[in-house]
Amino acid sequence: MKVGIVGGTGDIGEGMALRISQVHEVILGSREVERACASSDACVKTLEEKGISCTCSGVSNQDAVDGAEVVILAIPFQHVAATLSSLTGFEGKVVVSPVNPIGRKEHFFFAPPPEGSAAQLIGRLLPPKTRVCTAFNNIAAGSWKAIDTPLTHSVAVCGDEPAARGIVIGLVNSIPHLAGFDAGPLAVSPMVEAITPLLLNIAKYQKMRDVGIRFS
Amino acid sequence: MKVGIVGGTGDIGEGMALRISQVHEVILGSREVERACASSDACVKTLEEKGISCTCSGVSNQDAVDGAEVVILAIPFQHVAATLSSLTGFEGKVVVSPVNPIGRKEHFFFAPPPEGSAAQLIGRLLPPKTRVCTAFNNIAAGSWKAIDTPLTHSVAVCGDEPAARGIVIGLVNSIPHLAGFDAGPLAVSPMVEAITPLLLNIAKYQKMRDVGIRFS
Repeated sequence: MKVGIVGGTGDIGEGMALRISQVHEVILGSREVERACASSDACVKTLEEKGISCTCSGVSNQDAVDGAEVVILAIPFQHVAATLSSLTGFEGKVVVSPVNPIGRKEHFFFAPPPEGSAAQLIGRLLPPKTRVCTAFNNIAAGSWKAIDTPLTHSVAVCGDEPAARGIVIGLVNSIPHLAGFDAGPLAVSPMVEAITPLLLNIAKYQKMRDVGIRFS
Repeated sequence: MKVGIVGGTGDIGEGMALRISQVHEVILGSREVERACASSDACVKTLEEKGISCTCSGVSNQDAVDGAEVVILAIPFQHVAATLSSLTGFEGKVVVSPVNPIGRKEHFFFAPPPEGSAAQLIGRLLPPKTRVCTAFNNIAAGSWKAIDTPLTHSVAVCGDEPAARGIVIGLVNSIPHLAGFDAGPLAVSPMVEAITPLLLNIAKYQKMRDVGIRFS
């Protein structure tokens, strides 16, 4: 499967590339192709040094959309609207949102847009036939990047089209030890996104790092 | 520790009594003392048949508040206001809310009161010196009651007073295999309560039962 990562030079995007490029062909996008190529080269080098083969290339964000069957939006919440307004060609694509709208006072809190969640905002901003799903919302960048440690997280997948959820659950399950769970329509996504600020609070108050979640 | 369970004859309350009475003295409350005694007797009998000793007695809800060091409000969200208005004597007590406000359409969703969460509503309804915490929000009644299966859940504990959180985390950790996690102030409780409708959705769409959660 060809997996495009929009925002692939951020912490989360780079971490995802390290894991997903071992199993799928990753096209890692950025606003600047040079930075995308640098991140892609770093990914290949890191894995090569461990004797792990991978498939990863650096492209523009638009090429990451155009060339992929599944597009992951690895962008901070505050950049979602601007990034999506600069891109086209999402019709018919499976688009994965790992985006979480988070605020911070003393503690971290869920700060959703009026639509209810980042994924629902993305659903409104993209063309009607885009197959928007959530996945990977509750995995910290540090966990993605710690490639010597298996990712044993559970991943809740939401989306309004069951077939698209099935494709995304398949992508999740293709990454060793990750387990995808069907969580139903996109209206469930606020509950998935809200877990991330909770995990940040547990990390803060319980003094842990990169807290993850498992369902059983 | 003396643990009072208000609403102890409901599914969740009966399940909690089965687990907690093995470790602590449970005073199981109900609006009708006869029903509380019946639930308490059933708890003792169920455990006796397995050769497990316990301490459990049936009392009124008011006696469950008055006699306990920690009071668990095992009541459905829609009964919270009426139940609390009928009880007194909460000042200085550690009060644990496992309550989740949940709505249902096609899917389950988080339906909090204007205060933000059930726990925050409870905080507003009880006297200012009540030490309100959340705990046990994400454990299904069926899991509490399946006493041959260890409860391996993680439990997020919120509350505005760190010492009260510590007492509740101690209670959680005293139940074999359960693990309490400090999640910070009561303002974090919406994120904890919202996990329960997500787990119900995963149970529905992934075809599972009594889905639980673990942090790691």
